[in-house]
Amino acid sequence: MPANQQILLDNRPTGEAVASNFKQRSSETPALQDGEVLVRHHFLSLDPYMRGRMNESKSYAVPQPLGEVMQGGTVGEVVESRSPAFQPGDKVVGMGGWQQFSVVKAEQPGALRKVDTTHVPLSHYLGAVGMPGVTAWYGLVKIIEPKAGQTVAVSAATGAVGSAFAALAKARGCRTVGIAGGPEKCKYGVDELGFDACIDYKLHKDAASLSNALKEACPDGIDGYFENVGGMVLDAVLSRMNDFGRIAVCGMIAGYDGKPLPITQPALILQSRLRLQGFIVSEHMEIWPEALKELGTLVAQGKLRPRETVAVGLAAAPEAFLGLLKGKNFGKQLVKLI
Amino acid sequence: MPANQQILLDNRPTGEAVASNFKQRSSETPALQDGEVLVRHHFLSLDPYMRGRMNESKSYAVPQPLGEVMQGGTVGEVVESRSPAFQPGDKVVGMGGWQQFSVVKAEQPGALRKVDTTHVPLSHYLGAVGMPGVTAWYGLVKIIEPKAGQTVAVSAATGAVGSAFAALAKARGCRTVGIAGGPEKCKYGVDELGFDACIDYKLHKDAASLSNALKEACPDGIDGYFENVGGMVLDAVLSRMNDFGRIAVCGMIAGYDGKPLPITQPALILQSRLRLQGFIVSEHMEIWPEALKELGTLVAQGKLRPRETVAVGLAAAPEAFLGLLKGKNFGKQLVKLI
Repeated sequence: MPANQQILLDNRPTGEAVASNFKQRSSETPALQDGEVLVRHHFLSLDPYMRGRMNESKSYAVPQPLGEVMQGGTVGEVVESRSPAFQPGDKVVGMGGWQQFSVVKAEQPGALRKVDTTHVPLSHYLGAVGMPGVTAWYGLVKIIEPKAGQTVAVSAATGAVGSAFAALAKARGCRTVGIAGGPEKCKYGVDELGFDACIDYKLHKDAASLSNALKEACPDGIDGYFENVGGMVLDAVLSRMNDFGRIAVCGMIAGYDGKPLPITQPALILQSRLRLQGFIVSEHMEIWPEALKELGTLVAQGKLRPRETVAVGLAAAPEAFLGLLKGKNFGKQLVKLI
Repeated sequence: MPANQQILLDNRPTGEAVASNFKQRSSETPALQDGEVLVRHHFLSLDPYMRGRMNESKSYAVPQPLGEVMQGGTVGEVVESRSPAFQPGDKVVGMGGWQQFSVVKAEQPGALRKVDTTHVPLSHYLGAVGMPGVTAWYGLVKIIEPKAGQTVAVSAATGAVGSAFAALAKARGCRTVGIAGGPEKCKYGVDELGFDACIDYKLHKDAASLSNALKEACPDGIDGYFENVGGMVLDAVLSRMNDFGRIAVCGMIAGYDGKPLPITQPALILQSRLRLQGFIVSEHMEIWPEALKELGTLVAQGKLRPRETVAVGLAAAPEAFLGLLKGKNFGKQLVKLI
């Protein structure tokens, strides 16, 4: 069996996550048992949710165990199979984690899924046609429930989730406004992702200033908002929400000191009769087929052309992940292994 | 026509509302036109929502106009009628405002409703079997949607809304926990209103302390919460919400400086996948008949015995209202006019 480079969580962050929280080691892939499949990973997915799982404290998922391979999505190719459901050469998406190879019990529901790379590049199954895309779909379709002509907004707009959100919202006839960090991202959001406007939050020192920019970009107010960040951005958006607006809460970052950033004017929830709803897409597996079908079609039609930032080699994963947490990536952050 | 004492909004509060914001005057009731009814008010309703409308800034209702009679719910008796739908002697509920008499266009939908005082005292149509009761019903039934055996909580628990909430939640087989200010109110909540437990928030200096008390009172966590106050109480409850919990947002007080009190840990909305929804019961008139029927039955059966605090005479209305804002009342705050 091949040698397998792996990255483990070695210790938990105190405050900001750092490279020394991780550790690389070499291991051997065990011989396959009946029903198992050996997958060689082509790409690892790096996602913001992984930061929450590095903490011991209550999050919405079981914490990443210490001393074990960092968990995460992977795409790759079957290299050996003792399952009738998979053949060597099959392209697959799974949760192989931060390592070169994984051994997967093929019959376990949801463990491994064959994908078609005729019209969709393999890596996109970790982004636009994968978990981030389905996340955007769920928040937009099941929580925001927009009508054509309404205005919807999304933060972290040029990331994997935001990119998919833009295409899905445009397909529903919405005015679609992004919020992102820096002029390059905002230009890309408008030119390539189809946002009607994209606001650079870094130009604004407080929520009041950002709120004024939102007023200009959303002259009819905001009917639906997809929240990836929280803090000042959420405060500003809340001030522009229309009556009966819906907010899908998908991500909330903490301040530099690790303390959560408050919602400063919660009375707006009442005054504007808003609905805020937190969700985790893995708890809604029933919608994945419908969502993946739409997302795959949008990619195949060229209506969703997600950008990727690709780090090369397993050893680059920790730094790429830390960069993602600081918004250094552009679009979906991947690690390419072969 | 009789002389009519009235209380107007004379000027808007800067910060805390004060008695000098109001002004009393005497006026004459105009002669009735065809289709109009003259009502003599027996009771005025005083409600927390009126404070929001005293401000000019955006609230969920049009601001109370300056120099006009304070708007508000009333119950009374028809003394003269030029409408075939009403006869002198009819007991009616309407929105007559802070005055002794009102002239009502009887055909206007929702303007005036005849009520039956055989089993329900007239004043209760301003509380348990009126707007506050229906408010509790909407938040519980349409937003919290509790299942039998679940735990639900309410702040301002012994007020008009909280009292009705307790009876409605008990009728649905919920563990029902109140949060109120002071030992007397908490004892009354348990002994008379049927709360399984009632927590005195005044015993707690911060959200962490209140959260510990909630843990004891809600050993299985909180599935649904009816929010009347916000601030520290909301922070504490958020920390005890179960996954997929629902929060009906009905009231949010501001701090002493007039600034809204923040939600300090909004990440809990995501971590616990909560749904928060603001609402105003007057926007959901379709549910009033069903809600009033259940509330009237609970009162007639003695399962909802709401307490009332009654100020006497129109001139007492401003001070009674200011006391209500400080929690000095006990149950539904009314002003008795005759």
